[in-house]
Amino acid sequence: MPTILGQNQYGKAENRVVRIVRDGDTHHIKDLNVSVALSGDMDDVHYSGSNANVLPTDTTKNTVFAFAKEHGIESAEQFGIHLARHFVTSQEPIKAARIRIEEYAWERIATSDGNSKFIGADEIKHSFVRKGQETRTAQVRYDGEKWEVVSGLKDLTVLNSTHSEFWGYVKDEYTTLKEAYDRILATDVSARWRYGWTDDEQPMPHWEKSYAQTRRHMLEAFAETYSLSLQQTLYQMGSRIIENRSEIDEIRFSLPNNHHFLVDLEPFGLKNDNEVYFAADRPYGLIEATVLRDGADPRIPVDMTNL
Amino acid sequence: MPTILGQNQYGKAENRVVRIVRDGDTHHIKDLNVSVALSGDMDDVHYSGSNANVLPTDTTKNTVFAFAKEHGIESAEQFGIHLARHFVTSQEPIKAARIRIEEYAWERIATSDGNSKFIGADEIKHSFVRKGQETRTAQVRYDGEKWEVVSGLKDLTVLNSTHSEFWGYVKDEYTTLKEAYDRILATDVSARWRYGWTDDEQPMPHWEKSYAQTRRHMLEAFAETYSLSLQQTLYQMGSRIIENRSEIDEIRFSLPNNHHFLVDLEPFGLKNDNEVYFAADRPYGLIEATVLRDGADPRIPVDMTNL
Amino acid sequence: MPTILGQNQYGKAENRVVRIVRDGDTHHIKDLNVSVALSGDMDDVHYSGSNANVLPTDTTKNTVFAFAKEHGIESAEQFGIHLARHFVTSQEPIKAARIRIEEYAWERIATSDGNSKFIGADEIKHSFVRKGQETRTAQVRYDGEKWEVVSGLKDLTVLNSTHSEFWGYVKDEYTTLKEAYDRILATDVSARWRYGWTDDEQPMPHWEKSYAQTRRHMLEAFAETYSLSLQQTLYQMGSRIIENRSEIDEIRFSLPNNHHFLVDLEPFGLKNDNEVYFAADRPYGLIEATVLRDGADPRIPVDMTNL
Amino acid sequence: MPTILGQNQYGKAENRVVRIVRDGDTHHIKDLNVSVALSGDMDDVHYSGSNANVLPTDTTKNTVFAFAKEHGIESAEQFGIHLARHFVTSQEPIKAARIRIEEYAWERIATSDGNSKFIGADEIKHSFVRKGQETRTAQVRYDGEKWEVVSGLKDLTVLNSTHSEFWGYVKDEYTTLKEAYDRILATDVSARWRYGWTDDEQPMPHWEKSYAQTRRHMLEAFAETYSLSLQQTLYQMGSRIIENRSEIDEIRFSLPNNHHFLVDLEPFGLKNDNEVYFAADRPYGLIEATVLRDGADPRIPVDMTNL
Repeated sequence: MPTILGQNQYGKAENRVVRIVRDGDTHHIKDLNVSVALSGDMDDVHYSGSNANVLPTDTTKNTVFAFAKEHGIESAEQFGIHLARHFVTSQEPIKAARIRIEEYAWERIATSDGNSKFIGADEIKHSFVRKGQETRTAQVRYDGEKWEVVSGLKDLTVLNSTHSEFWGYVKDEYTTLKEAYDRILATDVSARWRYGWTDDEQPMPHWEKSYAQTRRHMLEAFAETYSLSLQQTLYQMGSRIIENRSEIDEIRFSLPNNHHFLVDLEPFGLKNDNEVYFAADRPYGLIEATVLRDGADPRIPVDMTNL
Repeated sequence: MPTILGQNQYGKAENRVVRIVRDGDTHHIKDLNVSVALSGDMDDVHYSGSNANVLPTDTTKNTVFAFAKEHGIESAEQFGIHLARHFVTSQEPIKAARIRIEEYAWERIATSDGNSKFIGADEIKHSFVRKGQETRTAQVRYDGEKWEVVSGLKDLTVLNSTHSEFWGYVKDEYTTLKEAYDRILATDVSARWRYGWTDDEQPMPHWEKSYAQTRRHMLEAFAETYSLSLQQTLYQMGSRIIENRSEIDEIRFSLPNNHHFLVDLEPFGLKNDNEVYFAADRPYGLIEATVLRDGADPRIPVDMTNL
Repeated sequence: MPTILGQNQYGKAENRVVRIVRDGDTHHIKDLNVSVALSGDMDDVHYSGSNANVLPTDTTKNTVFAFAKEHGIESAEQFGIHLARHFVTSQEPIKAARIRIEEYAWERIATSDGNSKFIGADEIKHSFVRKGQETRTAQVRYDGEKWEVVSGLKDLTVLNSTHSEFWGYVKDEYTTLKEAYDRILATDVSARWRYGWTDDEQPMPHWEKSYAQTRRHMLEAFAETYSLSLQQTLYQMGSRIIENRSEIDEIRFSLPNNHHFLVDLEPFGLKNDNEVYFAADRPYGLIEATVLRDGADPRIPVDMTNL
Repeated sequence: MPTILGQNQYGKAENRVVRIVRDGDTHHIKDLNVSVALSGDMDDVHYSGSNANVLPTDTTKNTVFAFAKEHGIESAEQFGIHLARHFVTSQEPIKAARIRIEEYAWERIATSDGNSKFIGADEIKHSFVRKGQETRTAQVRYDGEKWEVVSGLKDLTVLNSTHSEFWGYVKDEYTTLKEAYDRILATDVSARWRYGWTDDEQPMPHWEKSYAQTRRHMLEAFAETYSLSLQQTLYQMGSRIIENRSEIDEIRFSLPNNHHFLVDLEPFGLKNDNEVYFAADRPYGLIEATVLRDGADPRIPVDMTNL
């Protein structure tokens, strides 16, 4: 046969599981989108359609919901670890599992005015508003021996209205860009960071705290960097995290340069002194890079976008 | 001629204007998406293609950006009023203008750790993160005599994890739904509210404060209502606003019922005591209604969605 | 009570129903997205939460799927008529129903090479590829006496690479646009047309044929019009339909002007003789108008977009 | 320094270039979305912000538009080859270039009725309607020595209304799925295929013909396969292409299983004999695999989705 099967994986994607924990009147919410991808001895199903080694994707869906009850959802990463371990250890043909999770944050609705008809305003602990802002992501891989956990976030939109320049670049016959000494720098941060933790023997990181601190360093580095190019800002964000979070070995960013063009108001007799901008959609600069702890192996795939 | 021209309007849609105001090192940002629609004596351009009465849509775009400089952007509503007045009063063939605006909120990036390389952390006043959560909307109409201002918001996602029931409904031969005595109630709030202000002689509402208070009442009423149906919650949200905000005469809501189905875990020997839910996409209930100050004329169009 | 309830409606939105009809080995497919909105005596559910008059949205969903079996899906319009009649005539509190439908077209997969392993290539009559292109829409309203049927389409993207000019327009102090004597004209057609049929006594239009012919006239008028403005093209499209389809009384269009800007290649020593264009996203011109049979009442709402 | 820079790339993404070629009155259109990613000696810009080696993303945008004039657009792949060669050979610090392209297909508007006001209907050769259906993709990489061309498509939605079964699978304690002996099989095909061509010395494939034939084999294999699982169908699609198209060495698919659930109509006294289905959104099965010419190296990345 001149053709062969290469890498393959399958599972149920985008299981939207919400878990409510009731602590008296105080409720807690976890809101996840869980995708399962399994791989192993799957030649037969591709070559002949025999499903003898195939755990149905429907079963992987059921497992997600059952595990939300059996194990709870302490963090996206911990939930993924429970699931990946289960699939790999419970079914002989399954040799590896990858669990990807998106998490949507909620915050409590503050009530303030005593206008409640049913209960006192300060007792409402079951009402939430979705936080918006970034989506948190987590990816757990397990092959029966080693773990790989890559956490991340996407759609965290940030903007510096000054402290950004761009000049001193290469000029060829297609270059028309004017140098800029005070511009807006804005981007939608997508980032993925890989943990050094690979082994059940090692102490596990505190996933929730690590996420919060990584996000904080990312935002602070963005804000505090006087930027001569978006690449420089990216590296500052990455190195700040690697230097401060010993549990993280590698981080990759994909940063669109959300161009804000200063509008030419001279035809209308107006001076535009860095006041009025046109926020453009396409095209946009796209800056991508990995920052690594010295000695670490790069393992996060290069492609974070299809564009 | 057996065919005639009916209502028509034209203009430039989705002008993405960002204005930065520098108050020393402290910067302020306004981020709008402005759409212009003009109408008037426009028969000729439709019948024969004569553009003699047509102010180009490109000009309406330029005007948006120029006005961001000339008038600043105090609020979306006030900016829309400046634009609408200009178009109607400056061009004889233009008899009416409608300005629609989406506003995206930003908050400052908090810096906390003194890790800054260039400046002290507590001095960074030019760094922002997009707030996410709802998009604020504003619509201003002007016909040369009267104003109509309809403000609003969309995509404000809220959830009560209890205090919601649904029972006692009509049952026909297609009814299979089980009654529910403790369910999740969740929705993405879309709302539009119309102000009583119609006239330059009247004192203008404080648009920013009115928005903040309307949003607060909306969230509080959602949280505080013990709900027997989403319609009841909707009415509570609307009446709370009409009763507390004298400047608002009418509000219309479009509330999808974001179904969270309790997952049946019995096949796996597990009891699901209002803990684990499947968050469904489609189909969804869709509840829409107007709440009015008694005596007010309903003027907000019924259709807030195409579905 | 200082606040009152205004117009209200409710139902299940976006019921994705697919019906397969097997005619021997030849299968036929109908693929719809059906949204139900009911209104009537619904004060109590808003004021007090009593559901005594409320047919659950879940029941309206069940009815959609059951009717796909009981009545089949001859056309989107006919299916909507069956549903609307049922809701209004079977439940006393329901006084009016509005059914909105999106229809997705499929075409058969052509097989040509006799390479089939299981059956002869020319016998495959159960394989389909989604057509893409426009989404067909239909809206049926019924109040127990009169019918209103508004059909339509959206996302039909068309482009003329010449035979379009734009000049002779108003110039004010914000005008910078250059006149154009040969430009690309492109738009995503959204259209809704209303039928004269309102009564069970009248003969019903042939909905499928009417759709096909209306679409044909729309495309031909777009292609054949030498355009001096998009408004002129819109009117030609509308009047062509009104003149040729006696069953249609009114049509409304919403046409974004999908700007294709001629790229300035002079800095690179190249002449751009209407060859290379930048297809812009935002902002865009937006042209909207109704074309009516003389004497007809305009009843299609003005707003087809929120922008 | 404890942190180092890993893989990095930058460029202008989503340059929307449209090229019109006029052959007398007959016009031809190419409609692309071109993304440029360059890599090379870029340490300085990340570490210190020095742009001395950086060709601005704005220049890469200009180059895309200029090349559309200078070289024309024979095919997406050929256009990508022109661009990649230019960037790598014209700038010393740039060591590799990756060009990604989406192509949107158009077809001519057929005119039939002689109703034209300006010109004869059969002469209109400048009017187009966007074809919809799949988006074609192409990716070209060049490092100064070797080429890698990966073409593809996405969003090609197909459905078989029979000839699909699913049974004989693994059953564990979380399995509730019923076996199916006649079900709908539907998916949105995403595929990427890699060409054997790597070298300027080799004859280049005919990109347009190769695309058309690959698409044809894909559709035919989907239609002609009597499927016992989506994995089997995937492999049939891939092997049909590898066997018939000698220029292609590897193909990877990402196939969501667009579930169509048979609706239970028994509560309404109706029998649903494979007639009425609910088309579900989420979750969905996701089946991904590579099919290779025996002996070929797998080089297409495993991840075609983030879920």
